Amino acid sequence: MENLAKHRLKKLRKLMKEEKIDAYLVLSSDFHNSEYVSGHFKCREFLTGFTGSAGSAAVLQEEAVLWTDGRYFLQAESELAGSGIELYREGEEGVEELEQYLVSHLPKGATLGVDGRTLSVERYRGIKKKLKQKQISIRLDCDLVGSIWKDRSQMPCEPVWGLELSYAGRSRKEKLADIRKQLEEKADMTFISALEDIAWVLNIRGNDVDCTPVALGFLAVDMERAVWFVQPKAVGDALREELLADGVLIKDYWEAYGFFCEKYKGKSVYLDFYKTNTMIYKKAKRFMHVKKGRNLTMLPKATKNETEIRNVKKAHMKDAVACVKFIYWLKTHVLEERITEISAAEKLEGFRQGQEHYIGPSFHTIVGYAQHGAIVHYSATEQTNVALEPKNFVLVDSGGHYLEGTTDITRTIALGELAYEQKYHYTLVLKGHIRLAMAKFKYGCSGMNLDSIARQPLWEQELDFNHGTGHGVGYLLSVHEPPNSFRSRMTKSMEECEKLEPGMITSNEPGIYLTGEYGVRIENLMVSKQIGESCFGKFMGFDTLTLVPYERDAILKEELSEKEREWLNAYHEKVFRTIGPCLDEKERDWLKDATEKL
Amino acid sequence: MENLAKHRLKKLRKLMKEEKIDAYLVLSSDFHNSEYVSGHFKCREFLTGFTGSAGSAAVLQEEAVLWTDGRYFLQAESELAGSGIELYREGEEGVEELEQYLVSHLPKGATLGVDGRTLSVERYRGIKKKLKQKQISIRLDCDLVGSIWKDRSQMPCEPVWGLELSYAGRSRKEKLADIRKQLEEKADMTFISALEDIAWVLNIRGNDVDCTPVALGFLAVDMERAVWFVQPKAVGDALREELLADGVLIKDYWEAYGFFCEKYKGKSVYLDFYKTNTMIYKKAKRFMHVKKGRNLTMLPKATKNETEIRNVKKAHMKDAVACVKFIYWLKTHVLEERITEISAAEKLEGFRQGQEHYIGPSFHTIVGYAQHGAIVHYSATEQTNVALEPKNFVLVDSGGHYLEGTTDITRTIALGELAYEQKYHYTLVLKGHIRLAMAKFKYGCSGMNLDSIARQPLWEQELDFNHGTGHGVGYLLSVHEPPNSFRSRMTKSMEECEKLEPGMITSNEPGIYLTGEYGVRIENLMVSKQIGESCFGKFMGFDTLTLVPYERDAILKEELSEKEREWLNAYHEKVFRTIGPCLDEKERDWLKDATEKL
Repeated sequence: MENLAKHRLKKLRKLMKEEKIDAYLVLSSDFHNSEYVSGHFKCREFLTGFTGSAGSAAVLQEEAVLWTDGRYFLQAESELAGSGIELYREGEEGVEELEQYLVSHLPKGATLGVDGRTLSVERYRGIKKKLKQKQISIRLDCDLVGSIWKDRSQMPCEPVWGLELSYAGRSRKEKLADIRKQLEEKADMTFISALEDIAWVLNIRGNDVDCTPVALGFLAVDMERAVWFVQPKAVGDALREELLADGVLIKDYWEAYGFFCEKYKGKSVYLDFYKTNTMIYKKAKRFMHVKKGRNLTMLPKATKNETEIRNVKKAHMKDAVACVKFIYWLKTHVLEERITEISAAEKLEGFRQGQEHYIGPSFHTIVGYAQHGAIVHYSATEQTNVALEPKNFVLVDSGGHYLEGTTDITRTIALGELAYEQKYHYTLVLKGHIRLAMAKFKYGCSGMNLDSIARQPLWEQELDFNHGTGHGVGYLLSVHEPPNSFRSRMTKSMEECEKLEPGMITSNEPGIYLTGEYGVRIENLMVSKQIGESCFGKFMGFDTLTLVPYERDAILKEELSEKEREWLNAYHEKVFRTIGPCLDEKERDWLKDATEKL
Repeated sequence: MENLAKHRLKKLRKLMKEEKIDAYLVLSSDFHNSEYVSGHFKCREFLTGFTGSAGSAAVLQEEAVLWTDGRYFLQAESELAGSGIELYREGEEGVEELEQYLVSHLPKGATLGVDGRTLSVERYRGIKKKLKQKQISIRLDCDLVGSIWKDRSQMPCEPVWGLELSYAGRSRKEKLADIRKQLEEKADMTFISALEDIAWVLNIRGNDVDCTPVALGFLAVDMERAVWFVQPKAVGDALREELLADGVLIKDYWEAYGFFCEKYKGKSVYLDFYKTNTMIYKKAKRFMHVKKGRNLTMLPKATKNETEIRNVKKAHMKDAVACVKFIYWLKTHVLEERITEISAAEKLEGFRQGQEHYIGPSFHTIVGYAQHGAIVHYSATEQTNVALEPKNFVLVDSGGHYLEGTTDITRTIALGELAYEQKYHYTLVLKGHIRLAMAKFKYGCSGMNLDSIARQPLWEQELDFNHGTGHGVGYLLSVHEPPNSFRSRMTKSMEECEKLEPGMITSNEPGIYLTGEYGVRIENLMVSKQIGESCFGKFMGFDTLTLVPYERDAILKEELSEKEREWLNAYHEKVFRTIGPCLDEKERDWLKDATEKL
């Protein structure tokens, strides 16, 4: 039988010829540049067979290429086998980037095709600029993969629900007023494509995107009104009326593209180029003066209000109960029964489901046993799944959405006796983690300034980890939420490393990864807050939200400084005090030991 | 008698009327955006009477405004008194920026005049963009202040001299080849306006700019040839021939503007918009395709070669001898004779002049006694000059140029018994300084990632200082040299915080400033180097170059960690071992005590 991808490529190439398209680009995004996408949008997966979450394909008549990053090299290699699609390993030396590839492989004056709805304006402009030198034109109005995808699933259209004020903390009227206040100085209208931002403003949630409780839509806000383009079936009458009463008009999702028209001529629209797709941009640009900037919702959304913070502390308590139950279960059952990476993840999900107001996972749980723990974005598949043994580390990175907020936690759990080196590595990671948790800093700092605090104990031993130290986390929204983060390098957008404001929630997750042996990562969420003010300015610190014990058996007490040990003991004491009462007796006894003073 | 500035403004306004210019901008730059400028270029000082190094003036028919930053508020207030020029305090709340001021104070369709040679392309584009909304046009070809400045000094034209290979480490041929190699991928030609960069490539030095041993000029480099636009009188025959033999043609400085012509049509030129003036840019743009980027010389210049590093260590030894002699003299004479801030600076300069191959100060020495030490960029004037008393701190920040390189050092010296709080502050600053000096970090880090290391001991006590922790330093060039630095905030250009490469020299200068009381700053220069490599990457550290003892009487030993104390003792031991032999007996005895193990 012919390789499926080969077969599909053949069909695509036939279409390309008919449409006079020399190269066709297949991206992995939905129409809102969401981090996770539902099946309907997985054109790249359908075409190439590669199932990873990140990757772009370029198809020419004679060749086809797929770009993906380090976490997917092995998987892509195996999934692309026999397809004739060449794997381009992003970040490896000498590997051409997509833009460069197109320039060097296409003839002068060629035509590139892409579904403009899956391409952010920012990326479009980068590609366009690069292709200009060879006068390559870009056609945006073609979904060729869609044309050959016969059994494509429907676009998701899950029910939308309203988030009560006791969870959201601020009404949509207040939020809209806040945006309009910002808008006054910026433009006549803002058109928001980011689903999390729309959900935040409108105090609604949905279920159209994997792991993120949002609904497909666009939101236009001007000084007088707000128009929400959403699938009509998804919104019930009660919510619709509530929205209308707050000045939010509902229109069909697909009307968004036709929204821009003559009557807006001469007016300006404010667009986030990282989140807006190129078709929307083109429509807007035809009639309006486009002003570029990040969504006005980004900062108020990231800066959690008091209600959200109070709630999220509850969410973390419940999540900690689930995690502690899981760790206890794992430690006591690993000797007795067959537990695999996949079954462990299911068990953990079961404990979370036992908690009130639990909605679902905030991302795909990572359970990486031994050497799998050293693969940063490991996700067990039927092929890689292994049974846990009563030795070495297992790294568990997971999180949940609750009505009271979103969690994300990593614990590296010892399943048996550890070698000295394992403990040493664990302790170094813990030192970095604690130092960042304890850090006091001047208001105005960004995560770029603080990232090194977590890395220093590792750097001193010539160790490091190849990912950011932390990312922002939404409130019952995306588990990866800009603009706050801890990282060493500037990202292109710069918006990814905003100064830390009181109320921002950021993860604190240093690690060490020893290829072929094991991985250690320790992750808590922290909320930043002002802790003092002097004539030198305002000073800030963090409150740790996560309430799960560290791996006591992996800590070399003598490697911790006095201050680090004090912090650790206070943390463990708090964990026991808070979580203990929610456990059964055996679990509580175990937690008592696990949080004993060091 | 009429106020001089008032009188000059009147003349200028008359000219403005004749030229139909509604607002005229007077900047403080020369034609190369140099940090320090010679008298010829001080149009803003001539017009307004304000003598500070930084400040811009805008003159309209009915009003005139001068912008300057915090370090000059008091001085500007007094120097502008009676001129009718309003002081705009940059950075203070509610103070309009220059661009905004022009927009809000000029009518639609107005004309702004400025000498385009004193305006960088980067700033020009910022102003232009802002003024577009009111259709204000910009005239660049007018030096109106020059027209009314009758006794203006000549443009400096000091002799240019060649820097021998034993000092430069690499020949100009090699350097040109290196630039051409970079140029291949960028453009057909690069046109360099930065005087330090030209001096670096050509291995020449001059004396046309205050505190920076460079010569006025422009340098065009394409794949075949290099053309240096320089004042012909400044270059002797021998050097001219030497340059010609290396493929460097000399043309008159003023021919630079006419260099761009028909024959370059269709070719591209690479320009640094922060360093190129707008007149050059306009000329280039008329004929060539302009490519924007930072000077190709910036990175190789900042990354000192082995010869330069070997030399600069010698420069620091000599500089340390001068500094130690000065500190000894100061401590032993403050009780006996009248020493003022100005006379102390002169004495220090005398000690430097006693060193072989000393060329001159690398910036204006700061001697700030007691509360003057709390003014970050204090510079004693006849009005502010005070006598030092045998108590409190005196802060001395100074540096020199030697054939073997450039130094920059700050020591805060106790002139008598100190209060506990003074010692505590000194020790906190020292802790930050030592931690940064000891830091081990991953290759790829920039100073943005490391700045917080020096600040943490201060932040923990809710203290901070309002300047960067360090700046790059040139080799017998500018004492403030991009792109390396330690800082918390991103600058507009982003080029100011490049990742640290082995061979970069950066200052390490945390401080504390207590307004009205005293200031503490401790500054050494450090060269970054690779110190290890593991499977996690390359690791880097610093070698401290400066060799002058800290203020022993101000150190609270118990506040230092074991590691900090070890570092300090090893440093002091090295200082004594290296500098001791170059001192007379009394000085040596003093140094012995000052560097005794703590």
